[in-house]
Amino acid sequence: MTNLLIASKDADAYSTLIEQANLPDLNIWKYPQPYLSSGHEQNIDIIFGDPNLCVEALEICPNVKWVQSTWAGIKPLLSRSRQDFILTGVKDVFGPQMREYVFAYLLYFSRQIQNFQNLQKKTTWTQLEPTSLNHKTMGILGLGSIGSEVAKTAKHFGMKVIGIAQNQRNETFIDEFYRFEQYQTFARKLDYLVVLLPHTENTERIIDKQFLAFLKPDCILINAGRGQVIDEQDLADALKHNQLKAAVLDVFQQEPLPESHPFWKLDNLFITQHTAAISQPSEICKIFLRNFSRFQQGKDLQYRIDWAKGY
Amino acid sequence: MTNLLIASKDADAYSTLIEQANLPDLNIWKYPQPYLSSGHEQNIDIIFGDPNLCVEALEICPNVKWVQSTWAGIKPLLSRSRQDFILTGVKDVFGPQMREYVFAYLLYFSRQIQNFQNLQKKTTWTQLEPTSLNHKTMGILGLGSIGSEVAKTAKHFGMKVIGIAQNQRNETFIDEFYRFEQYQTFARKLDYLVVLLPHTENTERIIDKQFLAFLKPDCILINAGRGQVIDEQDLADALKHNQLKAAVLDVFQQEPLPESHPFWKLDNLFITQHTAAISQPSEICKIFLRNFSRFQQGKDLQYRIDWAKGY
Repeated sequence: MTNLLIASKDADAYSTLIEQANLPDLNIWKYPQPYLSSGHEQNIDIIFGDPNLCVEALEICPNVKWVQSTWAGIKPLLSRSRQDFILTGVKDVFGPQMREYVFAYLLYFSRQIQNFQNLQKKTTWTQLEPTSLNHKTMGILGLGSIGSEVAKTAKHFGMKVIGIAQNQRNETFIDEFYRFEQYQTFARKLDYLVVLLPHTENTERIIDKQFLAFLKPDCILINAGRGQVIDEQDLADALKHNQLKAAVLDVFQQEPLPESHPFWKLDNLFITQHTAAISQPSEICKIFLRNFSRFQQGKDLQYRIDWAKGY
Repeated sequence: MTNLLIASKDADAYSTLIEQANLPDLNIWKYPQPYLSSGHEQNIDIIFGDPNLCVEALEICPNVKWVQSTWAGIKPLLSRSRQDFILTGVKDVFGPQMREYVFAYLLYFSRQIQNFQNLQKKTTWTQLEPTSLNHKTMGILGLGSIGSEVAKTAKHFGMKVIGIAQNQRNETFIDEFYRFEQYQTFARKLDYLVVLLPHTENTERIIDKQFLAFLKPDCILINAGRGQVIDEQDLADALKHNQLKAAVLDVFQQEPLPESHPFWKLDNLFITQHTAAISQPSEICKIFLRNFSRFQQGKDLQYRIDWAKGY
C-alpha cells in the first residue's frame, strides 16, 4: 500500500483526478485539511503539491521518498536543509501559455495597439505604420523547455533568436549563443529580451544597471521567470530614463507586489500578477500520474531536480 | 526597347529599385509626375503601380500589354470595361504582416491586456486567469495565400482551423471545410472569425445579420479583407447588443471612415486605419522583377488575375 499526501490549494481537484485514474493500492490524504489523521504522517511515501505547502507537510512527514511539485518554481523546497527525497518538477506544460504571454506583448507593442485606440478615441483616420517581428532579434535568458517553446514561436514569426548559455549547446531554434561574459555584445543586439531564468545563486539580480545600460532605447524586456533575477531599483531607474522602451513583468521580488512599490506608477511598465502560466490541475496531474507509474516500477522519474544545480 | 510606366505614390522608390536591377533595354517613365512626355504614352508596354493610379494611366496609354499591381486589392482595375491586358496582383508578401495583425488582437483579448492595465491603474494585485488559444476554433473566410499564412500560425498555437470553400480543397492547415450554405453550423463553432475576402459580387455584404446571429457571444471578428463584405449597420447593431464579444476592423465600405460613422464610438469595436498589411516597395518590387523576367521570356506571369473571377 502506497500513501500519497496531496498538499495543494487545488487538493480537491487533484484528488478527484487521481481517483479517476483508479490506481491500485493507493491511499490518498490531503494537506492542510484535517484528513491527515495523527499517526498517518509516518506512513506518507509521496507528497504531490505546491512547493510552499510541501515544505510545511515535509515537517510532519519524516519518511517521504518522493515529492512531485505542481509548480515550475521549486525554490521553497530548495532552501530547506532536508534533501533526503527525490524532487521532481513540472516542465513542458507551461510552454504554450508562456509563448502566448510573450507574443501577446511583443505584438501589442509592434502593432501599436494602444496608439490605434488613442486615434479611435479622437475619431482620427491616421495610418500609423506598425513594424513587423520579421527579422527582429529576440534574446532569451533561460533556455529550458519554456525558453525553447518561446524560441520556436519566434522562429515561426521569422525572428532571429540569440541566447546565453554556459556551455556550447545545440538548440534547433537558437541562432547564436553567447557566454555571460559577452553580455554587452548580447544586450546591444536585442529588440526584445525575454527572461525565463529560475532563481538561483547565479541568477540573483543578474539584470542590473550594468546589463540594462547596454540595451537599445527601443528594446522591450519581458520577465516571466523569477523576480529575483532583476534588480528592481535599477530597472525602475532605467525605465524612468527611457534606457529601454518598456518592461512587462509577471514576477517580482515580493509578491503580491507591495502597494508602495514604484513599479505600479511607471507608464512604460506593464504588470501582470504572476499569471503568465497558470498550473492547470488537469495538465499537472498527467505529469504526476506518469511519474507515479515510473515510481512504482522503480524507474527514473521525469523532470528530476538536481539538488546541486537547483533546477 | 521596352517602355515601363511606374504609376505609384512610391514611384521614386520603385524607380530606384528597378534601376538598381540594371535591366537591359528598358526605359522607365513615371506617372503622375511630368516625366511622361507627350507622345511616349503610345509606347508604354507595361504599367507597374497602385491600382487607383493605374486606372488613370490606362486612360492615356492605349497599347499596354501588362499591368502589375502594387496592392493586393485590385478592385479599381476590375470595374473598368477595358480588359485588353494581362493584370497581375500581389501575393505572398502580406502574409507575415497579416498574421501578426490577426494574432496581435487574438492575444490582446485572450491575455486580457486591457484588464491587467486597469488593475495596474488601481494598484490592485488580482490574479486574472487568461485563456489560451490552444484548442480554440478559428474560422477563416478567404483562403488565399494570406488566409493560409494565418491558418499556419493558428496551427502553430494549437488551434482548430475551419474554413468555407465552394469546392473541396486540400489545405495543410485547414482542419475542416464547410460550404457557404452551411454557414449556420460554421458560425456556431467559432471562437474567432477572420475575414480576408476580396470584394466581389459573391462576397458583397456576405457578413450580415443572418450570419452574425449564429456567432457565439464570446466570438471575436477580425476583418482585414475588404469593408464591402460586411453589412456595417448589421455589425454595429450586433455589437451594441453583444451578439459577439468584439470586432477588429482594418477596412471599411468608405475609407477614410467618415467622422459621423457609428463605428468610432463603439467600445467593443477596434479600428485600425487600413494598416494591417502595408505595401513595402522592396517586397513588391521583387514580384515585379520576377514577372518582368518572365514577361521578356514570354512565360506565364505569376499571380495573374482571372478577369471573370476578379481575383
